[in-house]
Amino acid sequence: MEIKTEALKVIGFDADDTLWVNETYFRDTEAKFANLMSKYETPNAVDQELFKKEMQNLPVYGYGIKGFMLSMIESAIELSNGQVSTKDVQAILAMGKKMILHPVEVLEGVREVLEALSPHYRLIVLTKGDLLDQERKLEKSGLSSFFHHVEVLSDKQADNYAQLLQHLQINPAHFLMVGNSLKSDVLPLLEIGAQAIHVPFHTTWQHEEVSSPSNTNYTTLNHIGLLPSLLLP
Amino acid sequence: MEIKTEALKVIGFDADDTLWVNETYFRDTEAKFANLMSKYETPNAVDQELFKKEMQNLPVYGYGIKGFMLSMIESAIELSNGQVSTKDVQAILAMGKKMILHPVEVLEGVREVLEALSPHYRLIVLTKGDLLDQERKLEKSGLSSFFHHVEVLSDKQADNYAQLLQHLQINPAHFLMVGNSLKSDVLPLLEIGAQAIHVPFHTTWQHEEVSSPSNTNYTTLNHIGLLPSLLLP
Repeated sequence: MEIKTEALKVIGFDADDTLWVNETYFRDTEAKFANLMSKYETPNAVDQELFKKEMQNLPVYGYGIKGFMLSMIESAIELSNGQVSTKDVQAILAMGKKMILHPVEVLEGVREVLEALSPHYRLIVLTKGDLLDQERKLEKSGLSSFFHHVEVLSDKQADNYAQLLQHLQINPAHFLMVGNSLKSDVLPLLEIGAQAIHVPFHTTWQHEEVSSPSNTNYTTLNHIGLLPSLLLP
Repeated sequence: MEIKTEALKVIGFDADDTLWVNETYFRDTEAKFANLMSKYETPNAVDQELFKKEMQNLPVYGYGIKGFMLSMIESAIELSNGQVSTKDVQAILAMGKKMILHPVEVLEGVREVLEALSPHYRLIVLTKGDLLDQERKLEKSGLSSFFHHVEVLSDKQADNYAQLLQHLQINPAHFLMVGNSLKSDVLPLLEIGAQAIHVPFHTTWQHEEVSSPSNTNYTTLNHIGLLPSLLLP
């Protein structure tokens, strides 16, 4: 699918796993959690239970590390039949705080891409998750000066995008979204008449996976560094 | 202090304890938590420890119920010297989820005030806390149609307000904020040249208390129902 640049004015970037590393830390923490629970269940069973708990709690907690911490604690108690030690609960709290305070690792090529595109387009960040976390990560990334606007959404469905673009007075026909999640950063945009570029990250959270996309009207790039060649004359 | 209405165009409302009840649920939960911990410490000592823990964690977790839940769990382990049962930890999780899913109680007179003011001014909501929580509460309150814009801020200091008003292209001289917290809804506004009306709620979180305000250039109303008489001709 070719990108149409004639009408393009604004480019939206997803943040987690598009601008900087995120999912990797969740996977690392899940592995540590499975290890902590290894006296009660196999790693595979622990993973499945935790994911089930996260999905149960998603409507209550929303996206973000704090909800993940609370789901780990709840799973730990259930997986251990109430036998988990308070020391292990403290270890879970420490793992979560470490994730929140983790340094931000900007993905390779991102800064150069933003430098190349920012003189030609209005760049914005559209992310979901915890407001404070995302603001902090953008600050730590050193990338905030490239962006005209940052919006943290509670969810990334077509309606959320439509409302936001309306609020920012951006015509969907002038908008292109770049992100690693087909489900959150690509398909909803096609639905509202915008364009989208999929830049996969090596790790995708199960919840963000799409088995067979209903619409394939988007471009996939293997590396974000290829964006300027597509979007600049 | 008299309110100047000639230049006034936009009115911002705080949400928690200004539009609807909030602090009361935290106090109720704190009381239940103290009760749960009564085998280890006096209610007073439990309260103090929990508040200390919340303040320690505030830079990490930010405002909102999920951070409060995590701080309760951490305090419970420490207050009990690691002796707290997993059943009590489950009780804390249940208390927090109940808070998140609590029905919204719109304060008396709020709907009438918004009805009276909305034909004359642009009304917006400026709140801090958890994004998903606040969106959900506004939805449940049935008040969302009165507001042109809703912004959830990670903090409410003068800088946060200045940036937001700039983004919304609102001149501070045209802006008035209404809220229950001197510290978050009133003083920062005076600092940036906007006006503010303080409508105290019967309960104020210790963290929001100000002993002697540096600036007293604001109006206090005993009840939000008095707003129209002040702001309409």
